Amino acid sequence: MAQKNAFYAQSGGVTAVINASACGVIETARKNKIKVYAGRNGIIGALNEDLIDTSKEPAKNISMLRYTPGGAFGSCRYKLKSLKENAAEYKRLIEVFAAHNIGYFFYNGGGDSQDTAYKVSQIGAQMGYPLTCIGVPKTMDNDLPFTDCCPGFGSVGKYVATSIREVGYDLTSMAETSTKIFVLEVMGRHAGWTAAAGGLASEKDGDAPHIILFPEIVFDEEKFLDRVQKTVKKYGCCAIVVSEGVQNKDGKFLADAGLVDAFGHSQLGGVAPIIAQKIKNSLGYKYHWAVADYLQRAARHIASKVDVEQAYALGKAAVEFALAGKNNIMPTIVRKSHKPYRWTIGSVELAKVANVEKKMPRNYITKDGFHITDACREYLSPLIQGEDYPPFKNGLPNFVQLKNVAVPKKLPPKTCK
Amino acid sequence: MAQKNAFYAQSGGVTAVINASACGVIETARKNKIKVYAGRNGIIGALNEDLIDTSKEPAKNISMLRYTPGGAFGSCRYKLKSLKENAAEYKRLIEVFAAHNIGYFFYNGGGDSQDTAYKVSQIGAQMGYPLTCIGVPKTMDNDLPFTDCCPGFGSVGKYVATSIREVGYDLTSMAETSTKIFVLEVMGRHAGWTAAAGGLASEKDGDAPHIILFPEIVFDEEKFLDRVQKTVKKYGCCAIVVSEGVQNKDGKFLADAGLVDAFGHSQLGGVAPIIAQKIKNSLGYKYHWAVADYLQRAARHIASKVDVEQAYALGKAAVEFALAGKNNIMPTIVRKSHKPYRWTIGSVELAKVANVEKKMPRNYITKDGFHITDACREYLSPLIQGEDYPPFKNGLPNFVQLKNVAVPKKLPPKTCK
Repeated sequence: MAQKNAFYAQSGGVTAVINASACGVIETARKNKIKVYAGRNGIIGALNEDLIDTSKEPAKNISMLRYTPGGAFGSCRYKLKSLKENAAEYKRLIEVFAAHNIGYFFYNGGGDSQDTAYKVSQIGAQMGYPLTCIGVPKTMDNDLPFTDCCPGFGSVGKYVATSIREVGYDLTSMAETSTKIFVLEVMGRHAGWTAAAGGLASEKDGDAPHIILFPEIVFDEEKFLDRVQKTVKKYGCCAIVVSEGVQNKDGKFLADAGLVDAFGHSQLGGVAPIIAQKIKNSLGYKYHWAVADYLQRAARHIASKVDVEQAYALGKAAVEFALAGKNNIMPTIVRKSHKPYRWTIGSVELAKVANVEKKMPRNYITKDGFHITDACREYLSPLIQGEDYPPFKNGLPNFVQLKNVAVPKKLPPKTCK
Repeated sequence: MAQKNAFYAQSGGVTAVINASACGVIETARKNKIKVYAGRNGIIGALNEDLIDTSKEPAKNISMLRYTPGGAFGSCRYKLKSLKENAAEYKRLIEVFAAHNIGYFFYNGGGDSQDTAYKVSQIGAQMGYPLTCIGVPKTMDNDLPFTDCCPGFGSVGKYVATSIREVGYDLTSMAETSTKIFVLEVMGRHAGWTAAAGGLASEKDGDAPHIILFPEIVFDEEKFLDRVQKTVKKYGCCAIVVSEGVQNKDGKFLADAGLVDAFGHSQLGGVAPIIAQKIKNSLGYKYHWAVADYLQRAARHIASKVDVEQAYALGKAAVEFALAGKNNIMPTIVRKSHKPYRWTIGSVELAKVANVEKKMPRNYITKDGFHITDACREYLSPLIQGEDYPPFKNGLPNFVQLKNVAVPKKLPPKTCK
């Protein structure tokens, strides 16, 4: 029988290093003479038989994936229903995989995506199609269980900590006659991992950020304003990192708290301007605020070297596990020691990963709820270590845009989105 | 007579490289055995006799200023009135300068600050105190006249262009099933230089940013939305850089256009969410937006090497001009050629610089008003060339915090703010 081909796809919100995992998958598969077909826009590419022949891509382009943010083959936000609810979709996947002799399924994504990988892994058992399914972890949210951390998170952490440190130096200079408050909004709807990473910038008394607002801690306006005032009195200014998911005691996102434009449309703003305005109204301090949004997760120029290495290693391990006959698993990062940081690759069954969210432990947040603890620093610090700058050309990062040559279709068209 | 001392101060909004100019001033003064007293928080430090003895700072610390964002001695937003309006203030300055044997005045800032330097330069002639006054240019706004560019601008340009390129890769991956619009708000209340620099990221058809909104071009909503729709139809997504100073046909900032919170307080949001929401309301596309604010001007980690070198060279030149007997001038950058970029140091009289704003030439913006022209690229591109990474420690930039030892006061206290 001919050597089976592999299917690889990217799923969910992309990161600065998901392409490093793609690079690990494709380079390792090439070494083992396995052809990788990538799904254009994730699993949708499989459903639409819209496959990309990565063997048409020069080795140089593939190696440049290691430095390129975003998802080189396109990602998607698309969750497969259960086999029971939508058997037609699974039947279609099998048709496409069979038509292209696909025996390996590598799915690169976060919690929802590992759920998809798990569901696809059931095809083999329940629909009689032999398929080796390996999940490749990815999420800047750092909320996948059973792995020390998630590729994408270390880099966003490095970006946020670097940015708030830089802003801290700016703010300190301006505070005497002008801006005293700076609020940086970072991602994290349900867990404060990214906001926590910002805390690494404060290494000694007085360093920014002075306050961190986590989604895990109910926002207490009075206590918060009191802390801001004390900080300004002590240090002359106050730099704040706020997670987009901060909620009030009624469980409502602060970001949803009644902002309307001239036409009555709501929810224009983020939480940063709301926090800044609360301070202004109550304490009168001049403020500035920023919302990092995609900038943080795309910031390949300030990626963590550890993160890039882990992203690549997990992609490589996925292929090696598959070739070693393992199935229905996701490779993981296993921490051997904090300092020096030593890690190795482990694995976990997809069935266990799917739809489980890893929360920040309460002991990673200080008792007062406004900063991170030493235990948290011990965990986070290794993940932002090392720089891994992309090559620059004309003063700008020189990323690769793949040719993404389509695999000729073999089946009648059937559009699915 | 004892060798005269120098006064140096930082003024206005700080940048990623104003400390590189400080480094140039202090290292050059040291070589020439001139002691530099820095004003704590700009000119206010002189008025309050709150001086910092930079000779107490180890050479290593001074050299690290080259890598450190913000203003190491504190900046201020404080504009001196005219000699006629407030002679007492000038009298006070002379008292302080005389008490500390100050014969050189180096003032590092933008347009308003050069106005201050010019006013101080008049002391010599009008109040009989001999003082050599040299302005050191600085402003991320790039709006000082008579100089090819302003220190701080190249670095913010590199940051914005890098960021929108990275986001473009992210957005392209997500567009099929999710976010199709990304709006990045950058600084620039009156001139679109920073927004224009973002345009350097688009080197070929389809590259982000697809649209730039300048304060120089009246915002035409219908035309803009039409362009957004066409861009999404052609490329699948649309990345937009918007200058905070964009105005409608009535000359009103879009950012002021009627945003109120639950308590009726206005102007919470920036212009990015307003632009994004207009697109959503009219075209229905899912969006993300970011506001870079201080992040952009503090981003020393992605500073332009050309910018850092020019900032240092201008500080050095200021001292050398003073020692060569020149007075009442500001050193400038003179462009010798575009490609390769060759520049040298020139100078201009402070009287000519004060309160003149350099606008973007209309021929730097495309006829349709939505992007930059080749002439603009030719001008901008050299300014973002080269990387000049700061040293890193524990995964983060290792900036210096000076000891800032106070010079003992010699005069009775007189607080002025």
